[in-house]
Amino acid sequence: MTLTTTKTHAVHGGTLRYLKHDSAATGTPMTLSVFVPPGEGPFPVLIWLSGLTCTEDNFTTKAGAYGAAAEHGVIIVAPDTSPRGEGVADDPAYDLGQGAGFYVDATQAPWAPHFRMETYVTDELIGLIDAEFPTTKVRSISGHSMGGHGALTLALRHPHLFRSVSAFAPIASPTRCPWGEKALGAYLGPDRTVWADHDATLLIEGGTGQGCFDDILIDQGDADPFLADQLKPELLQAAADAVGQRITLRIQPGYDHSYFFMASFVADHVGFHAARLKD
Amino acid sequence: MTLTTTKTHAVHGGTLRYLKHDSAATGTPMTLSVFVPPGEGPFPVLIWLSGLTCTEDNFTTKAGAYGAAAEHGVIIVAPDTSPRGEGVADDPAYDLGQGAGFYVDATQAPWAPHFRMETYVTDELIGLIDAEFPTTKVRSISGHSMGGHGALTLALRHPHLFRSVSAFAPIASPTRCPWGEKALGAYLGPDRTVWADHDATLLIEGGTGQGCFDDILIDQGDADPFLADQLKPELLQAAADAVGQRITLRIQPGYDHSYFFMASFVADHVGFHAARLKD
Repeated sequence: MTLTTTKTHAVHGGTLRYLKHDSAATGTPMTLSVFVPPGEGPFPVLIWLSGLTCTEDNFTTKAGAYGAAAEHGVIIVAPDTSPRGEGVADDPAYDLGQGAGFYVDATQAPWAPHFRMETYVTDELIGLIDAEFPTTKVRSISGHSMGGHGALTLALRHPHLFRSVSAFAPIASPTRCPWGEKALGAYLGPDRTVWADHDATLLIEGGTGQGCFDDILIDQGDADPFLADQLKPELLQAAADAVGQRITLRIQPGYDHSYFFMASFVADHVGFHAARLKD
Repeated sequence: MTLTTTKTHAVHGGTLRYLKHDSAATGTPMTLSVFVPPGEGPFPVLIWLSGLTCTEDNFTTKAGAYGAAAEHGVIIVAPDTSPRGEGVADDPAYDLGQGAGFYVDATQAPWAPHFRMETYVTDELIGLIDAEFPTTKVRSISGHSMGGHGALTLALRHPHLFRSVSAFAPIASPTRCPWGEKALGAYLGPDRTVWADHDATLLIEGGTGQGCFDDILIDQGDADPFLADQLKPELLQAAADAVGQRITLRIQPGYDHSYFFMASFVADHVGFHAARLKD
């Protein structure tokens, strides 16, 4: 079970690869991109989790992150957001099924056999990257929107795996917004107490991951159309304040939910992680 | 005849707009993007011409140019690569017709009424931008592949309009490559002497624009699959050497024809133009 390179590009002095492999976690082919900075390495790793409707390509082509990654000497890994293909369950809506894995292991039909994105990222993907690339075996995690939720919850639930965590416009409390309620209900079933283990705000409130991260960097645009109904970073901030978890929540005036927003601040996030990855 | 904003995004402290307007030059609607850096202005302008198959969106989302443009205080304008629409002639091939305007004014049927990209860029677009944005009325031009050809030929043919010119992987001598021979033949007819006025290498060889540009910056990847058959920068270099036109031709090892290549060096081009735009 190894990675197959489908495309290679030189970028910012390093090498970007698009890859595919047969995943044991999802039982499907999975795709991803990996940027390796110039030099000999070994390099620390930043895992990037994308948002609803994205593949591994959106961040890779639009975020403009590789200049900063080259400068700081960080590998960036961007996986697809769900299993895909003809034998994989799907939903006509953009916010459920293929392209909307929500970084949980589904327990409910028809999603359970393939939609295992938590195990995929925290177990299989990390192992593959460390086996096939010159890594220091030290890594951090970040992401956008659904992927910001993924970064926060996977880091809090598996803090031994990640040196630091940040997010752009994360779904901060999926148990309390339409996107999250729909997806967690579909993948995990109607018992909302099960959902709480995949809600970054409730995890922090309950002390999961406490003391593991000196700071969590979050950027959020105040012109983001999803801010009030879906994202709700104020809930995360309040929970963090209550338990003494430091969060640097930057409300960026005029910025929306697009990759233009991420491109504007991604270098800050790469720098935030690089400082902690090289400690 | 004014620009209508279809989308606006904050990016790197500035404002990016997607716009459309009814073009007098092409007789069709035309689309473009305009990035205005932070601050009051007025700002100088960099016109970016894209390559085959591109719309105004490719450069805008993938080139990662706006960080450098914000830093240097430069407006960047990226027009579409041709007129489009149901009443506009087209060809099933990717390298002719819609998405492949080649920055000439067509004289031949069925292209002549709409395919007038030279007049569009050098007359109408420049006027619109100066009328509707806070510009210094000083501008430069750059582009990629077909758009590199466009930048070089439009700058050489209209040197009073542009302070400087650069290109990524330009079609350096379209009279001597399959893309150029096909497009110039279709748009300008079979008389090759007419084509020479739209071939950057032949223009330089013949002294057009001589003494107008202190240097021309060109980046070219040596892993570009179109290098030998379509792009041929060595012809441009030889012509420039023969007449004493300085060209900084940088052969970038390992880089291909993609936006990853442009993203890696676009800040150098913005800086090259900014230094000349503010002289």
